[in-house]
Amino acid sequence: MKKKDLANHGIRSRQDRLRILFSGRNADAILVSHLADIRYLCGFSGSNALLIVTADKSTLLTDGRYTIQANEETSGVEVLIVRKSLFAEAGGLLSLARTRKTVLYSPGQLAVSQFAALRKTAGHLAHWRVDPGLVAGLRGVKDADEVAAMKQAADLASAVFVDVLPIIRPGLLENELAAEIEYRMRHMGASGASFETIVASGPRSALPHARPTDKPIGKNELVVLDLGAILRGYCSDMTRTVFVGKAPRRVREWYGAVLAAQVAAIRALQPGVTAGDVDSAARRVLHRHRLARFFTHSTGHGLGLEVHEAPRLGRGETTKLEAGNVVTIEPGVYVENVGGIRIEDDVMVVQDHVDTALKSAQILTSAPKDFLEL
Amino acid sequence: MKKKDLANHGIRSRQDRLRILFSGRNADAILVSHLADIRYLCGFSGSNALLIVTADKSTLLTDGRYTIQANEETSGVEVLIVRKSLFAEAGGLLSLARTRKTVLYSPGQLAVSQFAALRKTAGHLAHWRVDPGLVAGLRGVKDADEVAAMKQAADLASAVFVDVLPIIRPGLLENELAAEIEYRMRHMGASGASFETIVASGPRSALPHARPTDKPIGKNELVVLDLGAILRGYCSDMTRTVFVGKAPRRVREWYGAVLAAQVAAIRALQPGVTAGDVDSAARRVLHRHRLARFFTHSTGHGLGLEVHEAPRLGRGETTKLEAGNVVTIEPGVYVENVGGIRIEDDVMVVQDHVDTALKSAQILTSAPKDFLEL
Repeated sequence: MKKKDLANHGIRSRQDRLRILFSGRNADAILVSHLADIRYLCGFSGSNALLIVTADKSTLLTDGRYTIQANEETSGVEVLIVRKSLFAEAGGLLSLARTRKTVLYSPGQLAVSQFAALRKTAGHLAHWRVDPGLVAGLRGVKDADEVAAMKQAADLASAVFVDVLPIIRPGLLENELAAEIEYRMRHMGASGASFETIVASGPRSALPHARPTDKPIGKNELVVLDLGAILRGYCSDMTRTVFVGKAPRRVREWYGAVLAAQVAAIRALQPGVTAGDVDSAARRVLHRHRLARFFTHSTGHGLGLEVHEAPRLGRGETTKLEAGNVVTIEPGVYVENVGGIRIEDDVMVVQDHVDTALKSAQILTSAPKDFLEL
Repeated sequence: MKKKDLANHGIRSRQDRLRILFSGRNADAILVSHLADIRYLCGFSGSNALLIVTADKSTLLTDGRYTIQANEETSGVEVLIVRKSLFAEAGGLLSLARTRKTVLYSPGQLAVSQFAALRKTAGHLAHWRVDPGLVAGLRGVKDADEVAAMKQAADLASAVFVDVLPIIRPGLLENELAAEIEYRMRHMGASGASFETIVASGPRSALPHARPTDKPIGKNELVVLDLGAILRGYCSDMTRTVFVGKAPRRVREWYGAVLAAQVAAIRALQPGVTAGDVDSAARRVLHRHRLARFFTHSTGHGLGLEVHEAPRLGRGETTKLEAGNVVTIEPGVYVENVGGIRIEDDVMVVQDHVDTALKSAQILTSAPKDFLEL
């Protein structure tokens, strides 16, 4: 098979696996309203679409702006160009059946008004039932082609980090550094950044979700760089923290503790382990260093077509990890008015025998994690 | 007053105007779930929040990641940091009232599951009624500070277009040009691009929403550049189309027709005119040139904190324009397998006496619109 045919085959098999899942739950169809799910199932990357998958057919509804693109990109679906509301039209399609159908839907991915439009035109022929997350489940386990794209996206982010190190110096604005990072990503082939690049220096590094500002990087400051690239639709997400100047002992100790916590969480990543266990592994190390209270977010999250996907690696999460999951591992400590340190890699859960050295985890991001004083 | 105080005052007055609007409709409170609406009303720019405005109080609900940011950014609200679901918590807040309250909500901005969580905890003390678009109405009419930010964002996009003209030549990849554009935006002070920059060359320019690819720009090709910057939260959105080489007569004629249509629509922009009338003005000119069937989208859309806001300037839209609206005017023609031309400016609707030369419209974007052969 040619490469394009192979890709089409892979995508059609996703629809077929979804059919097996919903018919196993006595449903006749699934309405997919989340754009990343739609892209995963049929390849369409536009910004307005609905996908209906029944036992014998898949229909993609979109609007006139995407007539050409939908036909170019998709595989295994019939494309329907809709002039008015996609939701009213989708409901109408479902009402064409002679018999009452059980249709799965995602209440977290449909606005109240959209669902009302669907129900109105579908009428009594559709019996709506909540999707237990079937597509998210499929997406959580990456196939070879997806992992290849994610590895490339992770390598690209890693290369950009190494590439900008020489320009980090006192006086450079956070905004300028963020612009350099995104520019180099694009030049290395990314279609874009997978989120707004974070460059947070000095006391601002204590804000886990800081936006870059016009603040110049100062002498003797921590700088958190959190960046990710999109490649063939797949995201990477990596954080490194550096120090501009000679770091005080306290900061070196914090860095060592965060790195130890990060490595412990990566080692805990195994098929069958819960997401909460991985989170605990990181938290335990920080607790030992009396830093646990400065770690104010969860340890990581799934990654793929979206930069935040299931599973969430947070306190008490009971989801069991599977081989093929790709997650971020990103513990951090944030001390208000002083600074923050975060270290983040993208890691795939693999079967033990594949990679014994790393104990069931394969790290996709490759930038160095030594404490760098610039 | 100091600048910061002035800004706070402006923002609090937005909440007060909203109170007048909802109490005029016999509602006791409004639940605001759309992030751009929340930013407009209280200044908060984080990615997870709900805002409840009652007759005497405004409460912003967000999560622990935003503790510091929410206190820094907001004005006129009490900040509540929530550990679990914002929606369950907001419902709980509403249930604290002793008397039944009528609460406005936006069914297009709440997922089915979120609304269910709200209703569950609010119980019978909240009577939910659909918001007729009160915040959107306020946001549609820009104040002086907003217009100043939008003018800067528009000037920035215009400057970047002029700045990249010298590098557009055969062989340059679409992706490279898009990266250059976004890099220069950031360097000129934008916090980011307001959407993924479009660079579409040759036959790809016939796709109105093309993403830039690894295709090199060819000799004798049309190139559509659609770009926008974010500055102080406000978006610009501008398109120019150039020709690389010496254009055939047919292409020059198309360009002239699109430009004439664009100017006609700008001239039609007046307080009291309907959005549909402005759309017709552009369409009529293209019809005269026998190009109307190649104009496959609407003439424009509102612009502000979001790159697509109300009003939509489409066929048959009955919304009346008001002084203070800022919209894009962007007719285009798209000939499959040949190429496309689009010209887009950001334009403010003003009272006649302010600017007679431009007949009630003030163009914020300033890049040249002559037909450029590079």
